[in-house]
Amino acid sequence: MQEISEYLDKNKDRFINELIQLLKIPSVSADPAYSQDVINASEAIKTALLEAGCETAEICETKGYPIVFAEKIIDPELPTVLVYGHYDVQPADPIDLWDSPPFEPQIKTTDIHPEGAIFARGACDDKGQMYMHVKAMEFMVKTNQLPCNVKFMIEGEEEVGSENLGQFVADNREKLANDIILISDTGMIAKNVPSITTGLRGLSYVEVEVTGPNRDLHSGLYGGAVANPINILTKMIASLHDENNHITIPGFYDKVEELSKEERAQMAKAPFNLEEYKKALDINAVYGEKGYTTNERNSIRPTLDVNGIWGGYTGAGAKTVIASKAYAKISMRLVPHQDWKEITELFKTHFEKLAPEGVTVKVTPHHGGQGYVTPIDNNGYKAASKAYETTFGKTPIPQRSGGSIPIVSLFENELKSKTILMGFGLDSDAIHSPNEHFGIWNYLKGIETIPYFYQNFVELSK
Amino acid sequence: MQEISEYLDKNKDRFINELIQLLKIPSVSADPAYSQDVINASEAIKTALLEAGCETAEICETKGYPIVFAEKIIDPELPTVLVYGHYDVQPADPIDLWDSPPFEPQIKTTDIHPEGAIFARGACDDKGQMYMHVKAMEFMVKTNQLPCNVKFMIEGEEEVGSENLGQFVADNREKLANDIILISDTGMIAKNVPSITTGLRGLSYVEVEVTGPNRDLHSGLYGGAVANPINILTKMIASLHDENNHITIPGFYDKVEELSKEERAQMAKAPFNLEEYKKALDINAVYGEKGYTTNERNSIRPTLDVNGIWGGYTGAGAKTVIASKAYAKISMRLVPHQDWKEITELFKTHFEKLAPEGVTVKVTPHHGGQGYVTPIDNNGYKAASKAYETTFGKTPIPQRSGGSIPIVSLFENELKSKTILMGFGLDSDAIHSPNEHFGIWNYLKGIETIPYFYQNFVELSK
Repeated sequence: MQEISEYLDKNKDRFINELIQLLKIPSVSADPAYSQDVINASEAIKTALLEAGCETAEICETKGYPIVFAEKIIDPELPTVLVYGHYDVQPADPIDLWDSPPFEPQIKTTDIHPEGAIFARGACDDKGQMYMHVKAMEFMVKTNQLPCNVKFMIEGEEEVGSENLGQFVADNREKLANDIILISDTGMIAKNVPSITTGLRGLSYVEVEVTGPNRDLHSGLYGGAVANPINILTKMIASLHDENNHITIPGFYDKVEELSKEERAQMAKAPFNLEEYKKALDINAVYGEKGYTTNERNSIRPTLDVNGIWGGYTGAGAKTVIASKAYAKISMRLVPHQDWKEITELFKTHFEKLAPEGVTVKVTPHHGGQGYVTPIDNNGYKAASKAYETTFGKTPIPQRSGGSIPIVSLFENELKSKTILMGFGLDSDAIHSPNEHFGIWNYLKGIETIPYFYQNFVELSK
Repeated sequence: MQEISEYLDKNKDRFINELIQLLKIPSVSADPAYSQDVINASEAIKTALLEAGCETAEICETKGYPIVFAEKIIDPELPTVLVYGHYDVQPADPIDLWDSPPFEPQIKTTDIHPEGAIFARGACDDKGQMYMHVKAMEFMVKTNQLPCNVKFMIEGEEEVGSENLGQFVADNREKLANDIILISDTGMIAKNVPSITTGLRGLSYVEVEVTGPNRDLHSGLYGGAVANPINILTKMIASLHDENNHITIPGFYDKVEELSKEERAQMAKAPFNLEEYKKALDINAVYGEKGYTTNERNSIRPTLDVNGIWGGYTGAGAKTVIASKAYAKISMRLVPHQDWKEITELFKTHFEKLAPEGVTVKVTPHHGGQGYVTPIDNNGYKAASKAYETTFGKTPIPQRSGGSIPIVSLFENELKSKTILMGFGLDSDAIHSPNEHFGIWNYLKGIETIPYFYQNFVELSK
C-alpha cells in the first residue's frame, strides 16, 4: 500500500486544516450553554463522512445529542468494520490556564512534537483521533482500496456518559452489525513505542450533597455548636481511604480481577521512568495504594477520586460563615468484573451511613460503565498489531489503560463483537486538561496505519 | 427622660427611612467590585453624624477604607464616650437564597418581629445597630440633654479584619481618648431577655492551598497513581478534629481559660431550649465538642470551622479530572488568653506537617484578633445594665458571645479603656446569612435605651 504515504504528502495540509475547522466548534456536551455547538459538530461530521466516500450518512436523533451513522457496503459477503468515535469534548475550564484559546486551534512545537502539535480542546480526545478514521476512509475509497464494508457511529455524549447510546445500539443491532469494532480514543506508550489498549477501567461517577443547618450561619455565633457540612464532608471523604490507600467501602474489592504474578511481570516490562514521570508532573513523590506500582495503580487497580468539591464562601477575602450545604463530585475507576451499578449502590449505601447526626446526605449517581478486556489472540488484535509493525517497524505492546470507554463492554454485550483500541495519542497530550493537543506526526501516522488494519483484517478473516 | 418615647413616636418613620437609605449602599468590604460603594457609605455616615449634632466630622484615610471620625465636646471636664461601629457589610452571597434583593431593603413581619423587620444585608450587622447611636445622639443634642462628650469612630473594614484600624488607633490616642467605649455589634438573648455581652471570642482566619500535579489530570490515566489535592485536603482537614471533636493542633488548648463550675452554672441559667434551637435550624441533632453544652460550645470554647472549600470541576454535569489545586478558608474562634497570632502559627506549622509527600501546602493568614472579657463591676457595665432596667423593666443577663470583635482588645491595649457591648440584635436576625434583618422594635428600643446609658454613666462617674 505504497500510495498511502504519497497520498498523505499530497493531502496532509488539507487533512490538518479540516481537523482545525472541526476543533473550532466548542461541542462541550456537559454544559447546556454549548448545545447548539454540539449539534453543529454532528452536522460537520455527517458532511465529512459523505465527502470521505460513505454512501449514506444520517443524523440519528436520541433523547440527548444525536448519533451520526454512515456506511459504505461494498459486498455483504465481506467482513464489516464498525468505527466508533465521539464529536463532543470535555469542558475547557479552567480557561485561564490555557496558553491559547481552547477553541481557536493553534499549531505549536513541543519537545515531544518537534513536527508541531494542534492545541485545542478535543484535539486528541477525540476529534483528532476520530477524524483519522474519516481520512483513512477517504484514502481507501479514493484509491479504490477499500477491502471490506465500513460503518461509522460517531456520538456526541461520550464525555457525559453516553447516556443514550445504549438504547440506540439496542434498537439498531442489525444496522450496526459488524465483525470488529475499531476505536481510537486511547493513547500509546510513546511515539517510538506503539501499543494497543487491551484493557479499560470501568467508571462510577456520583455527586454528593451534605446539608446541615437550613441556612448559612455566622461561624462565631454557631461555630462549634452545630455540624458544619464542609467539615463533615471532609471527614466522610477522608474516611473512604485507609492508611494504605485501600478504599474502605464494604464489598468494593469483592469482584476485582487479581492479576497473576506473570501478568504483572509482563506489565512491568513496559518502559517507565518514575523520575521522568514525577518531573513531568512536578511532584516530589507518587502516591497510591500500598503494594502496587504506579503503572498498576493507574490500570489494574480500582480508584476513588474527588473530581470537584465546593461549599461556603469561595470569593475574595474572608467570610465567617458556616455553609448550609457542601458538595463533591466523586468518580471511581473500576477494573474488570466490578459491576458499576453494583459499586454505585455500595458507595451510596456506605456514604449515607457515614453521615453523623446533624446532617443529611444525598448521593446522586451521574453515570458509569463497565471495564473491558480484549484477548490478544483475536483477529482484530492481530490485524492491528501487524499494521503497527508495517508503519512503525515495531510490534506494539498490549497495555491496560486506566481510562474508561464504558460503551466498549456495551458493544460486546449488544453486538457480540470485540473492540480494538488503536490509540495514537500520548499521555502528555493533556486530554481533559488545559492546553490539550495532538501531535501532527501522530495524526498522520494514525491515518497511515489504519488502512493496513483493514487490509490485514480482511486477509485474516478469509 | 420622658421625651425620648415621644421623640421616637414623632420621628420613627424618618429614622427607619434614613436607615433604609443607608442599607441601599452595597458596602461589601471583602469584594473589590464594591469599593466605590464602601467609599459612598463612609460619606453618608459623615453627613449623618453632622446632621445628628456632631460639631466636627471627618473622613480619615487609611491604607484601606477610610474611618469616619466625629465628635461633640461640650466640656473637657466631663466624661467622654467613644462610640465604635462599622459601615461595611458581609458579602451577600449566596444571592439566590435571598427572598428579596440584599440591597433593596424591605420591611416584612415575622413571628419574632410582628412589628416588622428591615430585610437587607447589614440591617443588623452593623449599619442598623450603629445607626441607633447616631439617632440617640440626635435626640440628646436636639433636646439639649447630651450629658457628656461624645466621639464616633465608624470604620469600613470590620468584616475583613479591621486591618488598618490598629494603626489608626495607635496614631490617634489623643484624638480617641475616652472614658468608656460603646459598641452595638452583638445580640441579646431574646426580645424579652435583654443581655449585655461580657465576653467575645478571638479569631484566626487562614486560607490554605494544596498543590499536587502541575496541571489538571485525566482521572482515568492518573487516578490512583498521584496524590489528588482534593482528597488530600479532605484528609488534612478531617484530621484537625478527633473523635470527641477536640481540635488536634498541638498546643491549641494550652492557654484556654477554663471556667469554674460556678461560672458554668451561671451560664446555664440563660434561657435555652434545645428543641427550639434544633427546630429553628432544621437539624435533627446538635454537634460539637464532647463534655460541653451547646451554649458553652459556641461561647467559652474555641472552635475550628471550614468557611469555604473549592477545587476541581464544580460546573454542571461530570468531568473526570484530578485538579492540580484545592483550597479552603478556615477560621478558628478563640477564647480569652489564646493569642491569635500564636494560634495562627500553631495552625500553620501543624497543617504544613500534615501534608503527605506528593503535594505542597501553602497557609496564608487572612486576619485575626484577641478575645475579650468585661468585668460586670465596671461603671460602664452598671450604666448599661441600669439603662436596660429602665427601658425593658428587666435586669440584663451578662453573657459570653461566640462572635469576635477583634478590635475590642485592641482598644483596651491602646486606649486603656473598657468597652461595653450593648447589642440589640437577635440570633434569628441571620447576620452573615441570606435574609439578614433587624427588628424595627429592636432598632427603636436601642435608640430609646442608649441615652439612658449616657445619663447613668455620667452620674456613676461623678
